[in-house]
Amino acid sequence: MENIKVIFWGLGVIGSEMARMTLDKEGLEIVGAIDKEKSKVGLKLSEYLNYGNSYIVINNNPIEILKSVEADIVILAIDSDSFVESIFPKIKLIIQNKINCIIISEEMIYPNSIESNLSKELDDLAKINNVTVLGTGINTGFMLNSLIMMLTASYKNIKSIRASRVTDLSGLGRTIIKSQGVGTTIQEFEKGTERGTIKGQIGFAQSISMIANTLGLRYDEIVESKEPIISNTYRETDTVIVHPGMVAGCNHIAIAYRNNKKIIALEHTQQIYPQCEGFETGDYIDIYGNGNLHLCITQDICSNIGTAAVAINMIPQVLSSKSGLKTMIDMQIPHVIENNFVDQLKYYLK
Amino acid sequence: MENIKVIFWGLGVIGSEMARMTLDKEGLEIVGAIDKEKSKVGLKLSEYLNYGNSYIVINNNPIEILKSVEADIVILAIDSDSFVESIFPKIKLIIQNKINCIIISEEMIYPNSIESNLSKELDDLAKINNVTVLGTGINTGFMLNSLIMMLTASYKNIKSIRASRVTDLSGLGRTIIKSQGVGTTIQEFEKGTERGTIKGQIGFAQSISMIANTLGLRYDEIVESKEPIISNTYRETDTVIVHPGMVAGCNHIAIAYRNNKKIIALEHTQQIYPQCEGFETGDYIDIYGNGNLHLCITQDICSNIGTAAVAINMIPQVLSSKSGLKTMIDMQIPHVIENNFVDQLKYYLK
Repeated sequence: MENIKVIFWGLGVIGSEMARMTLDKEGLEIVGAIDKEKSKVGLKLSEYLNYGNSYIVINNNPIEILKSVEADIVILAIDSDSFVESIFPKIKLIIQNKINCIIISEEMIYPNSIESNLSKELDDLAKINNVTVLGTGINTGFMLNSLIMMLTASYKNIKSIRASRVTDLSGLGRTIIKSQGVGTTIQEFEKGTERGTIKGQIGFAQSISMIANTLGLRYDEIVESKEPIISNTYRETDTVIVHPGMVAGCNHIAIAYRNNKKIIALEHTQQIYPQCEGFETGDYIDIYGNGNLHLCITQDICSNIGTAAVAINMIPQVLSSKSGLKTMIDMQIPHVIENNFVDQLKYYLK
Repeated sequence: MENIKVIFWGLGVIGSEMARMTLDKEGLEIVGAIDKEKSKVGLKLSEYLNYGNSYIVINNNPIEILKSVEADIVILAIDSDSFVESIFPKIKLIIQNKINCIIISEEMIYPNSIESNLSKELDDLAKINNVTVLGTGINTGFMLNSLIMMLTASYKNIKSIRASRVTDLSGLGRTIIKSQGVGTTIQEFEKGTERGTIKGQIGFAQSISMIANTLGLRYDEIVESKEPIISNTYRETDTVIVHPGMVAGCNHIAIAYRNNKKIIALEHTQQIYPQCEGFETGDYIDIYGNGNLHLCITQDICSNIGTAAVAINMIPQVLSSKSGLKTMIDMQIPHVIENNFVDQLKYYLK
């Protein structure tokens, strides 16, 4: 079997991380690179990435590349494009060119709960063209839904689930730091959440729908809130300064209620230097049912790298899956792939 | 769609737990019950279980039941039958009757690494008869392999994995307590491990093969050891007394080496009252690679109940899977099923 041929569409922070990972992996071959940014277009991929040995030239014309380049899968990684509605035309174009697709836009992790018509259209179109489309990532996509669901496997019955993720934004870029309201006043934070410029964790309520629907837990409503984390200390990064009394980040909470009881509660706390005030970064999951389970994970893999790895590691599964618009629920247990990706694909195709 | 029809073969501690769970779940229907023990044969299932409302009579003739009763799946749960070789004829009989099968025998979690000929025979036979066979459970099957594999999904590369599970045997039956050498002298423990009466975690080395093969981590050899946990304190349960200097349990270690470096190290420490000497029960996983991850899980679900739940929760996946001898690697992300099992099956069959 030949190498798996990959096109990258979107070479921002995460797309670039994925491209570097792909260059390192046996059985994967980059055959196309698309980005609209003028500073990138025309550069050889390895020149832009400052990594590896790829002579593929970055092109700004997706229609041309998708039509002319023979590929097995497109990795669609437009960092700023988190929403089903806005990413939809790009996915449609990929499907119409009969190429499989992995997307890291947050809402694509469980698109049906938020855009059922567009999801139906993508699913139908993917089936007609015999390709598979999967949304994945680390915050939405893995830690705060797939992992939670997996941990319930040893349960007979579940009463409630609580999970929180505490993230340190200090090392991340200006865009994400701004999107969590870091460095704003409380008034600015409130305006920002109203206007949608302060975003919290996009796709967060969808993670609840995904967990609840998959496990068969009924709920009456999902209530979301984005609260400012008001700093008591002075905090400073390369791109932002937070004085005491200012906002150090955003605490995004989503809760599913049934009969006014909390069935699933997710919390993502994103701020710069959480250690300043005694918060440890990590993932915390508590499951209550016929028994109680408490999980704690600490790790030093940042979200960008985690998202990049999850997406690339899913390639063989997407290529071997039934056609259609899929979610992580439809995939086999995800895992790192140290061996040849083609061997992994052969295993799944057996 | 009709209810999923289940036959239970083996109504020991775990089989009974599974039967009770099955009686509670919508979309599942028990249509047969097999056990060879005279005290059970002839009893109505609910009479024996002291639970629910099942009039199915426990029968000691598997050949007759499997032939005459129309069923979708057999749950094969012979507590004492942990090995591929000894459980093989029973699985074969089930397959020949064209019924799917879930088995909790520890070695069946990854049978190919230990009995490749028998595994090939089962796989071929299952494919011919268009049924699916899956081995699962909680110690082997979930915590010490599926969960570890899943946690690597956000990695680009793995250097090494260490995982340990600390179990409290105090509440468990005489058979399992004996199988871990609780209450023996050091000399008796050594003889017991030599003779195979002290068993440690059966299928433990297989969990390493499963992880390594799935992730594509090469190793030169797997070294196993079973060490006595020598008590410094007086410990007592209903069935055993341990004086200081005697054995309180077994520490089973399996390590995969490459170039004399530890690639995967698993440890299962099973003893009565580990708290006596400061050991907390729980699961601990450390993954080292392009980043480091440390996980800790504490829970109060005992292994028997966990195994029962994992097995029952896998029923819809087994019924919708491709035919053949499968492992947890081939299954979608496992999870609890709170809704109707038939609805879950329909989802997978889509």
